[in-house]
Amino acid sequence: MKYPKLPSRSENFAEWYNQLVLRAELADYAPVRGCMVVRPYGWALWENIQQALDQRFKATGHQNAAFPLLIPLSFFEKEKEHVEGFAPELAIVTHGGGKKLEEPLAVRPTSETIIGYMWSKWIRSYRDLPQLLNQWANVVRWELRTKLFLRTLEFYWQEGHTAHATREEAEEETMRMLGIYEEFARTEAAIPVVSGQKSESEKFAGAVATYTIEAMMGDRRALQAGTSHFLGQNFAKAFNIQYLDRNNQLQYVWTTSWGLSTRFIGAIIMVHGDDQGLRLPPRLAPIQAVIVPIWKTDEEEARVMEVARNLKERLSQEVLYRGKPLRVHLDDRDHVTPGFKFNDWELRGVPVRIEIGPKDLEARAVTLARRDRPGREGKESVPLDRLAEHLPRLLDDIHESLYAQAKAFLESHLHDVETYEDLKAVVREGWARAWWCGRAECEAQIKADTTATNRCIPLEQPGGEGRCVVCGEKATVKAIFARAY
Amino acid sequence: MKYPKLPSRSENFAEWYNQLVLRAELADYAPVRGCMVVRPYGWALWENIQQALDQRFKATGHQNAAFPLLIPLSFFEKEKEHVEGFAPELAIVTHGGGKKLEEPLAVRPTSETIIGYMWSKWIRSYRDLPQLLNQWANVVRWELRTKLFLRTLEFYWQEGHTAHATREEAEEETMRMLGIYEEFARTEAAIPVVSGQKSESEKFAGAVATYTIEAMMGDRRALQAGTSHFLGQNFAKAFNIQYLDRNNQLQYVWTTSWGLSTRFIGAIIMVHGDDQGLRLPPRLAPIQAVIVPIWKTDEEEARVMEVARNLKERLSQEVLYRGKPLRVHLDDRDHVTPGFKFNDWELRGVPVRIEIGPKDLEARAVTLARRDRPGREGKESVPLDRLAEHLPRLLDDIHESLYAQAKAFLESHLHDVETYEDLKAVVREGWARAWWCGRAECEAQIKADTTATNRCIPLEQPGGEGRCVVCGEKATVKAIFARAY
Repeated sequence: MKYPKLPSRSENFAEWYNQLVLRAELADYAPVRGCMVVRPYGWALWENIQQALDQRFKATGHQNAAFPLLIPLSFFEKEKEHVEGFAPELAIVTHGGGKKLEEPLAVRPTSETIIGYMWSKWIRSYRDLPQLLNQWANVVRWELRTKLFLRTLEFYWQEGHTAHATREEAEEETMRMLGIYEEFARTEAAIPVVSGQKSESEKFAGAVATYTIEAMMGDRRALQAGTSHFLGQNFAKAFNIQYLDRNNQLQYVWTTSWGLSTRFIGAIIMVHGDDQGLRLPPRLAPIQAVIVPIWKTDEEEARVMEVARNLKERLSQEVLYRGKPLRVHLDDRDHVTPGFKFNDWELRGVPVRIEIGPKDLEARAVTLARRDRPGREGKESVPLDRLAEHLPRLLDDIHESLYAQAKAFLESHLHDVETYEDLKAVVREGWARAWWCGRAECEAQIKADTTATNRCIPLEQPGGEGRCVVCGEKATVKAIFARAY
Repeated sequence: MKYPKLPSRSENFAEWYNQLVLRAELADYAPVRGCMVVRPYGWALWENIQQALDQRFKATGHQNAAFPLLIPLSFFEKEKEHVEGFAPELAIVTHGGGKKLEEPLAVRPTSETIIGYMWSKWIRSYRDLPQLLNQWANVVRWELRTKLFLRTLEFYWQEGHTAHATREEAEEETMRMLGIYEEFARTEAAIPVVSGQKSESEKFAGAVATYTIEAMMGDRRALQAGTSHFLGQNFAKAFNIQYLDRNNQLQYVWTTSWGLSTRFIGAIIMVHGDDQGLRLPPRLAPIQAVIVPIWKTDEEEARVMEVARNLKERLSQEVLYRGKPLRVHLDDRDHVTPGFKFNDWELRGVPVRIEIGPKDLEARAVTLARRDRPGREGKESVPLDRLAEHLPRLLDDIHESLYAQAKAFLESHLHDVETYEDLKAVVREGWARAWWCGRAECEAQIKADTTATNRCIPLEQPGGEGRCVVCGEKATVKAIFARAY
């Protein structure tokens, strides 16, 4: 059985992506337009993302909770910008238990309103602050153009919501969580990002300021991979969330929210994937090493399989990688060839393949193939008795190598531009960083001319000032413009 | 500040429950009728339940996945009994993105239909079997009478769904998962249950057979705490889920489903709680030990707090209980008295209180108070340097003691009855076990006369035969009748 090839990325990136998601069994289309089924391999990846983030949230004092899926429609009207942003995307429950409801209910698209309502009941005094909450939840937004993981009607995410006594604390929290997203992307997913602030026209509906981490996909488009919002007192005033301060004065709280979703899986696929399939970052990969036994005769099979089974047991039980048991899988299918299996696990992006054949047995060794380096270049023979200590180092090395490749790719396609002509040329093939006056008209001009949008005003700025790349007016910040998902 | 008392359980069990859930901050009422907010303390309890179950599911070969929230209404009509059971409880989305939908969508009440549909696409050959899936999800059922945790419009659960090549395998799976629920209830939640089969009239809509674990609450009512269904080929035929067997013949698969929900939190509250509040089983408790520092003067405060802080650090970092770091909390509030804190942590059901005051410091010891034994009887002084080894044993001891108390309570209120008069008397105060002919008419008679329902036909049977407690006809099984939640 010949292993069917994926379309190449250069030929048709969109089709490469769609086929890869389906064939790697990360997700499938649901019967309702725009909805997806996350299959076990995709969900295991999400569970690893959840664990890595949840640990960071708890270490910074946050607690998980669960707020309801169904929100009275009237809640959305309490914050003017919020309703404008979300009303067009709502799914509405009008009937329950066979009867028409008195007030229609929205399926939550995000939970600022319902959490704001509950805080107005729970928060009384400064002693009740800060509130540091998070929930892992599903949300529904009625999108028109959908794509598995990147934009689906229902998606999965975490949404953090915090309330503070002072503006400074809330601003600090907003930046702390942005920092956690950046660090998570780098150290767990091997994805370099640009951290920055969204422009007025790109910010979250209801926020005072939105911060983002932007990642560069393999087709050089940008993807917003996580956001953190400083909400000021907008929701506090809309939902009357007040507290008595130490001087017994009534004050409005200051709130934040921040989220990262299953969209991030799309980023992992498109940042690291190659023409053979996924290349999963070792720290998040559901399977970190796969053992592929190789034999021709029945006698060889018996010998090889015995060693393979023992090896799987031993590695799973004895090897810790970053404090957790190594995730090893033994591919014991007997109706496909080793060559088919090699292709299959490459497609699924397993970081390390461990080949065991009769020759390896003789040498008391295994052949390792690392997914981040193609062909022979990524192969080495390692003695069986050194494997347990070798694998964690190898996984770290693959992580670093994936990160370095992605970082080099990002840097080589992010260009400072001086003129509008340069900008137009650059955004066809990459990201343009340019002086920008801060006016929405200039952003809109760029979008109209090139379809590129203002991705963010990076936190890291050159300083000084220049002339806006569009209008030539004085500009004190540089922004990044790129086509985006 | 005096600590307000709960209503006593004997006085008003329902009100004791409602107030306890709110005051312990396990959950709160949401603005939509019948929905709840699970607050951090309640969600932490649920996360511990999730971990304990998830580990067992994975150890028995199951994988997690995520199927969509929104299901085409027409799917429910494919299985005749299923639609009769669930249609009256559906919440319906009729509008999305500002437009009326062509086909209304149900918010999932359970996922047999959508998973059946996907299996019909995924399953081709015997090599694709078994399918062993689980999801942690929210579901919505439009209930009329609601109660926090026990019956809410939206609730959280896991739903396992499996497909098998043979009837025997599916039946075995059904019983395996029932066994896991029983073992989980016993060894993690310290809850003794009766495992049994539901009668025809009480089984899941669409199942061939439903099995249940039934627990006795503090008011001696029964609560169905988890169910496992053998679905036969009902859903396989409704959704055309077929596979090619080893002889290349097309066969329908055999399926199962099984679920345990946030309802289980209600069971924990009502099995173990007493008039002072919760008594959480140590292995699931969000906080296993709380340190309450005691001082009068500022000088004492400084000394006590230093030891308390060090102790908290040391215990969290050094003590493992059943392989996981001990969950210790230091109550450093300075605006309430130690007495207030004692009451507060008793209400919240923390298994062990660690008191540290000036006298304890002098003795280089702490005073431990265990939640399962009232007043002085549960107190002991333990040297500081023996605390780390003592706590895990103490937690195990509390677990055993809670289990023994619940087991004794169950046994003392479960009576074998011979006559219908006896049955009517017993179900006023407990559970009645009686010979039953198997006919729905006799169940219905009991329900009409006493409001007690047939909870289950216990797996453990006396053998032999008797006369049905209602009609006097020949009976080969005993069933348990009780009022239930």
